[in-house]
Amino acid sequence: MKSSIEELEAKGRAAKAASRKLAYLSTEVKNKALHNIAADLLARKDEILTANEIDYREAQASGMNEAMLDRLLLNSERLEAMSKDVLAVAALPDPVGEVFDMRTLPNGLLLGKKRVPLGVIGAIYESRPNVTIDISVLCLKSGNAVILRGGREAVHSSSALAGLVQEAAKRAGVPEGTVQVIENTDRALVNHLLKMNSVIDLLIPRGGAELIKFISENASMPVLTGGIGVCHTYIDKTADVARAVAIAFNAKVQRPTVCNALDTLLVHADIARSYLPLLAAAWARAGVEMHCDERALSILKSSPSFRLVPATDEDWGKEFLSLVAGVKVVDSLDEALEHIERHGSGHSEAIVTEDYTAATRFLNEVDAACVYVNASTRFTDGGQFGLGAEVGISTQKMHARGPLGLKELTSYKWIIFGNGQIRP
Amino acid sequence: MKSSIEELEAKGRAAKAASRKLAYLSTEVKNKALHNIAADLLARKDEILTANEIDYREAQASGMNEAMLDRLLLNSERLEAMSKDVLAVAALPDPVGEVFDMRTLPNGLLLGKKRVPLGVIGAIYESRPNVTIDISVLCLKSGNAVILRGGREAVHSSSALAGLVQEAAKRAGVPEGTVQVIENTDRALVNHLLKMNSVIDLLIPRGGAELIKFISENASMPVLTGGIGVCHTYIDKTADVARAVAIAFNAKVQRPTVCNALDTLLVHADIARSYLPLLAAAWARAGVEMHCDERALSILKSSPSFRLVPATDEDWGKEFLSLVAGVKVVDSLDEALEHIERHGSGHSEAIVTEDYTAATRFLNEVDAACVYVNASTRFTDGGQFGLGAEVGISTQKMHARGPLGLKELTSYKWIIFGNGQIRP
Repeated sequence: MKSSIEELEAKGRAAKAASRKLAYLSTEVKNKALHNIAADLLARKDEILTANEIDYREAQASGMNEAMLDRLLLNSERLEAMSKDVLAVAALPDPVGEVFDMRTLPNGLLLGKKRVPLGVIGAIYESRPNVTIDISVLCLKSGNAVILRGGREAVHSSSALAGLVQEAAKRAGVPEGTVQVIENTDRALVNHLLKMNSVIDLLIPRGGAELIKFISENASMPVLTGGIGVCHTYIDKTADVARAVAIAFNAKVQRPTVCNALDTLLVHADIARSYLPLLAAAWARAGVEMHCDERALSILKSSPSFRLVPATDEDWGKEFLSLVAGVKVVDSLDEALEHIERHGSGHSEAIVTEDYTAATRFLNEVDAACVYVNASTRFTDGGQFGLGAEVGISTQKMHARGPLGLKELTSYKWIIFGNGQIRP
Repeated sequence: MKSSIEELEAKGRAAKAASRKLAYLSTEVKNKALHNIAADLLARKDEILTANEIDYREAQASGMNEAMLDRLLLNSERLEAMSKDVLAVAALPDPVGEVFDMRTLPNGLLLGKKRVPLGVIGAIYESRPNVTIDISVLCLKSGNAVILRGGREAVHSSSALAGLVQEAAKRAGVPEGTVQVIENTDRALVNHLLKMNSVIDLLIPRGGAELIKFISENASMPVLTGGIGVCHTYIDKTADVARAVAIAFNAKVQRPTVCNALDTLLVHADIARSYLPLLAAAWARAGVEMHCDERALSILKSSPSFRLVPATDEDWGKEFLSLVAGVKVVDSLDEALEHIERHGSGHSEAIVTEDYTAATRFLNEVDAACVYVNASTRFTDGGQFGLGAEVGISTQKMHARGPLGLKELTSYKWIIFGNGQIRP
């Protein structure tokens, strides 16, 4: 253990040293590294898939469920998609070096801000091996060094991918030490990593609620948390019913295991009788289980094809990550707003309405990273928002909120050009 | 103690409740509150000065030093200046509600960001009573509720000023509860405050290094730290000597007790013999004590009028906050950069040079909030930078760096206008 900790600290120092050179590395070299990674993902396919197969078989043998196994799996199509995504990031503008808010003060000082990398990013994540590529590529492009610590279920896949990144980056002329990998998945090393605030400028946890909570509470450096999405869709009394069915259906069913999926449906009492049976029929066909409050239950219970469960207090504010939704009838927009304020996690919230004032109030009064009118919360995603990619979705208010792309991995410094100015 | 903690929690809840209404309070009402405060600072002068006199006498009796007593003192001129500063903030544009990065995606979703307040700001500060006004006014204008906890030396002054702010804000129609004051200066209450992360969105400590360190290490919510400025000025071999004397003199002498004052002077060996005696003569007349490395000492020691002390290792990276400066001769720009990287606190760093490449390298390679070419580091200040005012100076990289004005007390939310979009 002692030697592992020493090794970890050495990796931290190497990343820090690399980050200083990375801060002003040319866009050309960074993009070359990304192109190398994209090419190697295809060229070294067999090697990666072999490593992934080891992880997959071990996970299968240990009884991992289908959804998790699917997250772990790599195949040719997925590697091709990853390679394309890397090229998409290469095509994005380099955030580093952007100069903004520049102006000349009355005393002749020319001052403004210049965008700079954060320094060293620590990434702690769970099973999805593609996170290794996503985070490495975003860090490289934004001029940050990165220390990767993937989940133990994906250790062979992550090591193979991280090795590929290291080799591809080196070939392009990226400073050695830029991408560090912790292959030892001992939990004690994570605990030590959380103390390395002289080396790591920002920690990004990606995974389940438990991982994120543990890291937020124990890290000694800033943490960008998020991922926990308790998302509400509120169907206002003036909603277009067909549109409201399509939106709630998409928000719950299109990919139920992710953070921007619908958890609780709030329906205005005036529209509940016409709306709920239509949605419930569509949801039932997709296998959605509805945890209904009393009023919703009384509207729906006559139909034996619906999967209905009486809601308990624990259903509100719960992130289901599966084909389950809480359903509650409310008497007013105000009641919906109060429910969201009390139970939301500040991720993504939507209203479906044809009422201008209701839409405006919802946009103004809901305090969340992403607030939607008449659209599915499933759009909360760096790719969908046009950021090219994301390292995660922040539910914090400081630094960055919502999908985190390249710009969110940077800071700025004030640069001041004088010609002898002194303060009077 | 128990009742004080209950009272503190009630204040926290009241601030949180107020913050929800504040988030969309009109600019008109906020500015009216600021105008009321500015007027009341003049109209209620006698009352405030009487309260300040109590603090001042008690501090004097307890043996507080002159510099600290001066920080504590209020008088007519200072109140008039404070009143003017409040009007200056009122005249600044309201950051809240600004909509930016708005665009229409190929699927027709109209999306962008809208600037919103952070919520509830906690401010923990030491003796200067004007901080009560500065922070309250910036929080009000940026739509944040605030919980003020001033130092015990200024308790009467701060209470009088906070009472004035509360009354003036209420008269303008600002929600009650917006400005909370903790008058009980028991340390245990601060410890409790640091745990109130469900209520306080951001904590701003203002004071000495010890206070800031304690709060950073113990707060459960985000903290914007700063204020610790270990500032270097590097005199390059190509510097214009007269300009370099004026800049280093200003940086050290104009106000030595603040964070942006010069702490360490680095001088290139090629210019040290011509430069150092001129600066030392000017500094000596102002009473500056020079903690010199061996080479600087050998250049200056023949003159009995200079106040010279041999430097020890502890002089490098020390924030003197007084008329003391470390002085070191270096052989190259690289050596200066290395010294700054090792000993700087990431606050303000300056180079004096006529060499274009040296200036460019310094700007690019120094990792600090504010990097100057040919100007005094004393300019690092919200007012000087044209931000109108500041709640502090951040030496962090996350969220905001350098002087913190109105915009830095805000976050944003993504707002998305759809017309039925679902994710394919």
